[in-house]
Amino acid sequence: MKATLLFPDKDIVERFYVPLIYTACRTCYSELEPDEIFRRAVAGEVDGAKQQKLIQGVIESGHGSTIEHIVFTFGISGVSRTLSHQLVRHRAGVAFDQQSQRYVKYKGASTMLPATLEDADPELRRRYEEQIEGSLDLYGDLLGAGIPGEDARFVFPNATRTNLVMTTNLRALIHMSGLRLCTMAQWEIRRLFQLIRHEIFNVSPFLGSFLAPKCVPLGYCDEMNNRDGHCPIRPHKDVVLAAWAEKAKTARAAGRELPVT
Amino acid sequence: MKATLLFPDKDIVERFYVPLIYTACRTCYSELEPDEIFRRAVAGEVDGAKQQKLIQGVIESGHGSTIEHIVFTFGISGVSRTLSHQLVRHRAGVAFDQQSQRYVKYKGASTMLPATLEDADPELRRRYEEQIEGSLDLYGDLLGAGIPGEDARFVFPNATRTNLVMTTNLRALIHMSGLRLCTMAQWEIRRLFQLIRHEIFNVSPFLGSFLAPKCVPLGYCDEMNNRDGHCPIRPHKDVVLAAWAEKAKTARAAGRELPVT
Amino acid sequence: MKATLLFPDKDIVERFYVPLIYTACRTCYSELEPDEIFRRAVAGEVDGAKQQKLIQGVIESGHGSTIEHIVFTFGISGVSRTLSHQLVRHRAGVAFDQQSQRYVKYKGASTMLPATLEDADPELRRRYEEQIEGSLDLYGDLLGAGIPGEDARFVFPNATRTNLVMTTNLRALIHMSGLRLCTMAQWEIRRLFQLIRHEIFNVSPFLGSFLAPKCVPLGYCDEMNNRDGHCPIRPHKDVVLAAWAEKAKTARAAGRELPVT
Amino acid sequence: MKATLLFPDKDIVERFYVPLIYTACRTCYSELEPDEIFRRAVAGEVDGAKQQKLIQGVIESGHGSTIEHIVFTFGISGVSRTLSHQLVRHRAGVAFDQQSQRYVKYKGASTMLPATLEDADPELRRRYEEQIEGSLDLYGDLLGAGIPGEDARFVFPNATRTNLVMTTNLRALIHMSGLRLCTMAQWEIRRLFQLIRHEIFNVSPFLGSFLAPKCVPLGYCDEMNNRDGHCPIRPHKDVVLAAWAEKAKTARAAGRELPVT
Repeated sequence: MKATLLFPDKDIVERFYVPLIYTACRTCYSELEPDEIFRRAVAGEVDGAKQQKLIQGVIESGHGSTIEHIVFTFGISGVSRTLSHQLVRHRAGVAFDQQSQRYVKYKGASTMLPATLEDADPELRRRYEEQIEGSLDLYGDLLGAGIPGEDARFVFPNATRTNLVMTTNLRALIHMSGLRLCTMAQWEIRRLFQLIRHEIFNVSPFLGSFLAPKCVPLGYCDEMNNRDGHCPIRPHKDVVLAAWAEKAKTARAAGRELPVT
Repeated sequence: MKATLLFPDKDIVERFYVPLIYTACRTCYSELEPDEIFRRAVAGEVDGAKQQKLIQGVIESGHGSTIEHIVFTFGISGVSRTLSHQLVRHRAGVAFDQQSQRYVKYKGASTMLPATLEDADPELRRRYEEQIEGSLDLYGDLLGAGIPGEDARFVFPNATRTNLVMTTNLRALIHMSGLRLCTMAQWEIRRLFQLIRHEIFNVSPFLGSFLAPKCVPLGYCDEMNNRDGHCPIRPHKDVVLAAWAEKAKTARAAGRELPVT
Repeated sequence: MKATLLFPDKDIVERFYVPLIYTACRTCYSELEPDEIFRRAVAGEVDGAKQQKLIQGVIESGHGSTIEHIVFTFGISGVSRTLSHQLVRHRAGVAFDQQSQRYVKYKGASTMLPATLEDADPELRRRYEEQIEGSLDLYGDLLGAGIPGEDARFVFPNATRTNLVMTTNLRALIHMSGLRLCTMAQWEIRRLFQLIRHEIFNVSPFLGSFLAPKCVPLGYCDEMNNRDGHCPIRPHKDVVLAAWAEKAKTARAAGRELPVT
Repeated sequence: MKATLLFPDKDIVERFYVPLIYTACRTCYSELEPDEIFRRAVAGEVDGAKQQKLIQGVIESGHGSTIEHIVFTFGISGVSRTLSHQLVRHRAGVAFDQQSQRYVKYKGASTMLPATLEDADPELRRRYEEQIEGSLDLYGDLLGAGIPGEDARFVFPNATRTNLVMTTNLRALIHMSGLRLCTMAQWEIRRLFQLIRHEIFNVSPFLGSFLAPKCVPLGYCDEMNNRDGHCPIRPHKDVVLAAWAEKAKTARAAGRELPVT
């Protein structure tokens, strides 16, 4: 599995991406025209740290439109069709083009081996591998016998690898990362978003810092399946809100005002 | 494969759906309030044929927002994962929930047989069926050996059947039908949209009449792959525009004005 | 200002809307076909309370696609263009058709008076009303002098009232209500969503219960402008997370394990 | 009115934008990984003219996802609120941030004068200008008297100028241009898209060539309001399809096969 940031490169990100978001934010609150705001930001007439601080506040408050103005394009290769079927469910702020099993007549189809099968009983693993290889072999024979590619591929397993080009704006990328970096996400798609986060960090540690499981910005985990608190990243919503409720109750009992701030 | 219109039923469609679109259209051009327009339309104070005529004109002009106000929910079952992977690529005006191969531990997984394989050489078909059955058997054994369902399913073929609930507004449904009823669409998804069209016709022949390959409203086919004109539904764009150009040239040569209307 | 639920009526909501969401949820986790799940739910073979409980859990976990299958259509009338310009910024899961100031030649344009101007110094209020009336009069004179409606309306104030038809799925409605019922939203759009919530409650107290300022499901307020805690609906995120941090620190100091659940 | 392309600059467009679309197209039909396709395209190992030809064909066939991978960000300033209210109705593939009349307390609000009023009877024009100036003066006085900005702006006319940052992918830009460059679009928004097209031409004549009224790629006009053929850009759909029908009828009468290609 591979995820490569195709566009933009580090130089473009460093020169333009923070100024673009800053311009979108400032345009809402200023009588200045956007091209003048942008010119100043790019020229460094507005301090870079000040630009970042504004952006940080806007993202933390969930005012998301301002971070729809910058996009990242990834080449994604060698992921299973199981992963791609999940990935393309994302709709807002994201574009996909995927290798077509209908049009490509594969000469070298390859497959993904899950870790649980890699580590399984050798006999079980052998059966799995034979089954998968049998599928790929039969696919070739079906093509050879004149069956159209779009029908021959019915024999391909979910494990079959595929490639995609994915473009996403920052808002969608933060949203997807929030879901897919969660320890409860499927292992393969979680790994993909770890690679994607790594690519973003390479071109901008500041922007990369916003790619995290959703519990990190929320301050708590809201997954039903984590009511037992087995994931250590953040405590569950229930216990966090209970801690506050307890503190407020104690304050009230002592005749003190609620510590709202 | 099955497509069942879950909502709305024929009674609801007949009472409310044309009036809803009519209200959206009229609100744009009227000083009347929408609830009054709607009341009149539902009460039959505006002639039904007049309502339909307005809607027809609006749809033919491509002014699509007015037909986003009515939705249809389908239960779709027994389609291959090959179909579902294509289907969920639609993003605007459509919602999907799909049977999860991650969470469902299948006891009775079944598969789809393409017609080309059904009609293939018996030996080839036998090999295909054995391969598919082998996959389903191995899936059961993997589950039995404690492999998680989300990994065991890597062995499932594309042919594996799945179920979805799909809700789509009329605009998205016309758009999807335009692409998927085209003779160049994949046979399985084309069959699905034939079933869907049948369901819509059952509750409203008027609304069903807008579900057609995109060449029908366009008046020509714009598919590159049909430059040879093998699909008989409509002539290719190139020849239609050429016919006009020829007629205009003749008119000019004869000193006549261009017949623009 | 008026917001009227045009579709569906109470009978339709009671018969179909909870079963539709339930079917979407169950389809993901079941080998049963969606039309069978739906049939059972509508027939009451699945307990209504059980259906609601599943839906409640799914909404609270933020798994939103399942609540995109049901929609509500509102007639909205008498709101200012200030409100409508904000409202139509919502994009996902929502459709609008609005009275066109380009095509409608107003005979009876009317305007909205903000409470701060209603309660203002009488002289100031008089000037405001004269200015507004002057605009409407001039509009009429411009039309009379042959200026096209699309240009005459340049003189219309933001206060001018407009009508819309809005259709929204439940996910978008919860999202919009979360933002627009917040005490920091603009007063007019907040009032609109109070009317909308009232309409939903009329047809389903269960579904209406999910329409609340976003702080209610979150358990805390995340608005930068409420760091002083002036809005009493929920405490600010900062103090809630601090209460938890304090409790965890005390536990650690006492050698106790973190109370993660 | 001003529209300035903020991002990307000509150098970035020339180095990366055609290769990005090319990579999206090729990934669908190739076993090569997207990063390798992109590397070859950027390095010039694939002929630029060949890349453009593929892109041209894909756009002409309406296969739009491939052109969602490149975006353009514009600073737009000095447009009326009438224009902005229309512009932000676009939803797919586009992001907006707009100067807030709620948060900005204008010191120098300015307005747009339609040409029909500029050229109107001097007395009428004088009344219009007085009315508009009266609105801006009163706004200042309302602010001075302590009325909140969000209420004072109710007196602002539609003519009031505003600024936006707009980011759009190429697919959405072609779609919007198709509607807004049409001679039946409102004059102000049409002018805006002429400026936008000019900006795109400056960085890429190839990409700019796709920005045209929708009748240009269609080959005919499908606007109901142009059934009289008053707009000369393209003949109406009715006459184009009639020319083909006539030619086909003649062919049939002469016993010749239909000239489908």
